[in-house]
Amino acid sequence: MAAPATTLKGQPLDKPLLERMLRRRMFYTPSFEIYGGVAGLYDYGPPGCSLQANIIDQWRKHFILEEDMLEVDCTVLTPHDVLKTSGHVDKFADWMCKDPKNGEIMRADHYVEAILEARLQGDKEARGKKVEDKEEDPKKKKKKAKSEAVKLDDAVVQEYEEVLARIDNYDGPALGELIKKYDLKNPATGMLPSDPAAFNLMFQTSIGPNSNLPGYMRPETAQGQFLNFAKLLDFNQSGMPFASASIGKSYRNEISPRAGLLRVREFLMAEIEHFVDPQGGKKHHRFQEIENVELVLLDRDTQLSGKTDTRKITVGQAVKEKLIDNETLGYFLARIHLFLEKIGIDLSKLRFRQHMANEMAHYACDCWDAEMLTTSGWVECVGCADRSAYDLSVHAKKTGAPLVVREQLAEPQIIEEWQVRIEKKKFGPVFKKDAKNVEDALEATSQEQREKLAKELGEAGKISLDVAGIANGKAEISKDVLAFEFVKRSVNTREYTPNVIEPSFGIGRILYSLIEHNFWTRGVDGGDEARGVLSFPPTIAPIKVLIVPISSKDEFKPLLKGLSQKLRGLGISSRVDDSSASIGKRYSRNDELGTPLGITIDFQTVQDGSLTLRDRDSMSQVRADETRILEAIRSLVDGSKTWADIESELPKFEGQELDVAAR
Amino acid sequence: MAAPATTLKGQPLDKPLLERMLRRRMFYTPSFEIYGGVAGLYDYGPPGCSLQANIIDQWRKHFILEEDMLEVDCTVLTPHDVLKTSGHVDKFADWMCKDPKNGEIMRADHYVEAILEARLQGDKEARGKKVEDKEEDPKKKKKKAKSEAVKLDDAVVQEYEEVLARIDNYDGPALGELIKKYDLKNPATGMLPSDPAAFNLMFQTSIGPNSNLPGYMRPETAQGQFLNFAKLLDFNQSGMPFASASIGKSYRNEISPRAGLLRVREFLMAEIEHFVDPQGGKKHHRFQEIENVELVLLDRDTQLSGKTDTRKITVGQAVKEKLIDNETLGYFLARIHLFLEKIGIDLSKLRFRQHMANEMAHYACDCWDAEMLTTSGWVECVGCADRSAYDLSVHAKKTGAPLVVREQLAEPQIIEEWQVRIEKKKFGPVFKKDAKNVEDALEATSQEQREKLAKELGEAGKISLDVAGIANGKAEISKDVLAFEFVKRSVNTREYTPNVIEPSFGIGRILYSLIEHNFWTRGVDGGDEARGVLSFPPTIAPIKVLIVPISSKDEFKPLLKGLSQKLRGLGISSRVDDSSASIGKRYSRNDELGTPLGITIDFQTVQDGSLTLRDRDSMSQVRADETRILEAIRSLVDGSKTWADIESELPKFEGQELDVAAR
Repeated sequence: MAAPATTLKGQPLDKPLLERMLRRRMFYTPSFEIYGGVAGLYDYGPPGCSLQANIIDQWRKHFILEEDMLEVDCTVLTPHDVLKTSGHVDKFADWMCKDPKNGEIMRADHYVEAILEARLQGDKEARGKKVEDKEEDPKKKKKKAKSEAVKLDDAVVQEYEEVLARIDNYDGPALGELIKKYDLKNPATGMLPSDPAAFNLMFQTSIGPNSNLPGYMRPETAQGQFLNFAKLLDFNQSGMPFASASIGKSYRNEISPRAGLLRVREFLMAEIEHFVDPQGGKKHHRFQEIENVELVLLDRDTQLSGKTDTRKITVGQAVKEKLIDNETLGYFLARIHLFLEKIGIDLSKLRFRQHMANEMAHYACDCWDAEMLTTSGWVECVGCADRSAYDLSVHAKKTGAPLVVREQLAEPQIIEEWQVRIEKKKFGPVFKKDAKNVEDALEATSQEQREKLAKELGEAGKISLDVAGIANGKAEISKDVLAFEFVKRSVNTREYTPNVIEPSFGIGRILYSLIEHNFWTRGVDGGDEARGVLSFPPTIAPIKVLIVPISSKDEFKPLLKGLSQKLRGLGISSRVDDSSASIGKRYSRNDELGTPLGITIDFQTVQDGSLTLRDRDSMSQVRADETRILEAIRSLVDGSKTWADIESELPKFEGQELDVAAR
Repeated sequence: MAAPATTLKGQPLDKPLLERMLRRRMFYTPSFEIYGGVAGLYDYGPPGCSLQANIIDQWRKHFILEEDMLEVDCTVLTPHDVLKTSGHVDKFADWMCKDPKNGEIMRADHYVEAILEARLQGDKEARGKKVEDKEEDPKKKKKKAKSEAVKLDDAVVQEYEEVLARIDNYDGPALGELIKKYDLKNPATGMLPSDPAAFNLMFQTSIGPNSNLPGYMRPETAQGQFLNFAKLLDFNQSGMPFASASIGKSYRNEISPRAGLLRVREFLMAEIEHFVDPQGGKKHHRFQEIENVELVLLDRDTQLSGKTDTRKITVGQAVKEKLIDNETLGYFLARIHLFLEKIGIDLSKLRFRQHMANEMAHYACDCWDAEMLTTSGWVECVGCADRSAYDLSVHAKKTGAPLVVREQLAEPQIIEEWQVRIEKKKFGPVFKKDAKNVEDALEATSQEQREKLAKELGEAGKISLDVAGIANGKAEISKDVLAFEFVKRSVNTREYTPNVIEPSFGIGRILYSLIEHNFWTRGVDGGDEARGVLSFPPTIAPIKVLIVPISSKDEFKPLLKGLSQKLRGLGISSRVDDSSASIGKRYSRNDELGTPLGITIDFQTVQDGSLTLRDRDSMSQVRADETRILEAIRSLVDGSKTWADIESELPKFEGQELDVAAR
């Protein structure tokens, strides 16, 4: 069970208070609200937008610039054939069922889960047990069905619990059987819902005026990167391994999106596709730089045993123990951890959870999620999947494009193998229309089979072979038209399809978790609502500096303008608040926006040009001339110094209480 | 007629050479090429992607940061009702016709134009006139119909020319009539095409599992900004004027997209919506900062008189002469000009063209386009429209949301007016079910009508009023239930719907024009192909520094790594090229990528740590220690210094010819 969510300072997190604040400061807002809104669509207002841009900026520096990744920007519009090949047309679906009375459409797995859990809850109440506050898992978020205190047979309780433990294992028909077997009526209508039907999560459209080219809005940015693999390899002068990266919107037509940024229909992703040679254990040449990074891991086996105990372990040790499969996967998990730390995620609310076999996407062979603890429980924010050679292979097979690496071997490799030799001129006339099928069947034989068949052909002068698609399914082939030869040959190049390690970031989920992790409240003396603060690191904060004049006199105006211009010249965003509110109120408004620094312009500034600089979190202040204050701001914003550094360098200022109203 | 396109150095622009180079260096590439591609969709490779990111970064600084604009990020998915209200569902369409034989779909206006022009061309040939190389207008780009030398009557020539001059004026039915009247058969099939049908340019989809919420992919980012107007005004603490801004993808299902980035179906836009009080002449408080900026203008009247003569004039003078309608519009035209100059657009290939009345979008009341001269003629890259109060008004009317500004008046305003007084208790029983209609009709009367009706009521004791929706359409109302009173009242607030000035940037078109404007070729001695160079300003260039070791010896490796890391620390992108190609070849590869600076690491570097820095354009070099070289790079990349500055500060280096192969 997850601990109840807390603020940055360990206070119980008052979610309604936070939500009011986010709305008031326009971090994000339901799209098309004046038209009644559309579920799962949100717009970012100025602070949210800036926060998003700063996260992306740090992401680009941390990943793309640091590792010379090849960034690409591919289209959202994607023709049907591409997503058919990738498996999304057939497999990127959820099961939904419909209530015949009120027409409500529900995710079938969530529906079964909610009702069984409500019955178990009711059983506990009837047995007089204390009802636990169940951990909410946002991946399985559902409307909680209301429980009635009805006692169940012990055997039934056990059966329900077993079903719930395996809920991700059932497909649509199986969920439909459960609904009938346990008579899972919709509490809202008293009706059984329809049989579950597959609902593809992609938005469909058609491209061009003919309406004859069906297409989709991409569900991930990855496919565009895979399709460009050969060009990217060429751009990289054939060097391996290398990574491509892409930042862009993706779309999923969720059956039931929830309020907030955690399950939406349009979202910004940042994805890396790291292409690596599958041979040689997927080593990474910079692994030693991160091997001592400690991660909190929740592995597959622990989960299968029904537990959620995590383990804090260095990446080096985890790879050694094969807990994490290989160096490249470990390298990226550590790099993800370092990125999240840098932007201000609370590390005590971060874990890496390994996917269980049955919950992985159709293309993945291993996957770890970076999950963050929020008021909605543990939320998956970054996935790090090993997609193996799946995508490159299926696209190459479909299109014939060589999505492979050709590697010059240091020394030629000697290959010994059985080869099939067909006497084409005679072979055709013997098998006529079946010739192609028979030839294919011969070519498909393995080395072991060929060795056996060679012996048979030598001894009997003919062989009998299973051939699909011809009359009676068997062909008899004589040594007149066929031979097997054992050949030794020398190979200078090696051709392989790279494997792909894919770190995939949901920027909206990270942004929301970041808000919760940096939120806390400052006590107030009076009866007012606790005052919210967002303690974003200066690099990430939407606005860096609030400029507050202590008076609205004309002599302050040129000072404000000059200071704004200088900050702008440094590329630092600032806001002037020359409203008539008290200085305290003005600062508190900007605490809510997460503005880390404040400059007060007072009467002494007019005299000697000195400025006070205030730290949002400690509310302590320093005072110095403009040059030194600007230098301090620059070093705080680029992350090279902390407030403690600045406090030790510049004179402390305590001459004036901030909460005094403007003179 | 446009002059033929030239390179940055005035050479004739060899477009096939440029295109080969852009493809080789993966600036952009057709999307889904291994699946055969989709017309109008392109992916950006690493240099294109970086170029795009740098343009956006400069845009954010130049507009959003400089002017404290409120950036928002709204969804692409947009429900039907919003775009119905905005007029896009009904009016955002082109007329298309279809060839009944080969099924080809063509834009009707382009079709008529192409065939008439071919006939006029044929006439000239038949008359033995020299055939001019007609200017290509990419807005009207079409397949050129092949001309046959057939002489036309003088009257027919005049008629065709008049039709062509007004081609933007015809709607679908009129274009259909022209096709029949002039028997405009498709040269490819000899058939008359179908009657033109309206084809809406928006991509349609449906949102949610019910398929009952039709939606579109937005055709512009503007609507999301308008819908958030009230929240943004509130965020801005009710201050006016202010601007919102948005950077994001938009979509138009073009009937016939062309090769290249100039007419595509998915594109990145950067749009500003500047909200301004329509009263007081739309002044701008920073106008004096830009009033001396000189613009090249092609105004509406000049175009209507059939000419394309431009005029170079300061913004101040143009506004004074009312050539540009108001200060705010002029301010943004100047700011657009300055932005384009900053990113490296060739100002001799830039003009601002005013829209003619018949070519404006349905929402615009005035519009100027920043057009750039390219190998495809003059290309519209930035639009700057005055959308008046159109959008806010229609959305407010449809939803009832108050998309208005309420302004406290400095002194109360006295209003004298006739008011309607209804004796509710008696009025209802008299008119029964018609009461609401009669009341509405009374409330809808104008001040003039009320004055007349008051007189009539006073004299006759009753009035007769036209009322829609009631039996016989007239109501007789007596003074028992009705009175008109002349009232004087004092008003403290003014309510108005702001006007919108909208600068709207097509980033892909700007990016492509920027490439052409910065392209030139360096002569070579041998018979090789001329070597392409892209002279992007350092702030905009995709990669800033190429690092070239003169030898592949091991002692160079730590130097390369250290230097890369230091540049990364400064946020400057670099590439190491330690391939075995000659130094000259390696630099020439990076000239094609537009990399402005090169560092050579040679044997002296190993001894004393000094480095040479090379300028892409002049190929001259300086040499200094690492600290000074890094400082020079930083100042060049942030735009604070030019190469001439660096050359005057650091010792010139001529010790080594670059085109000598690596030792």
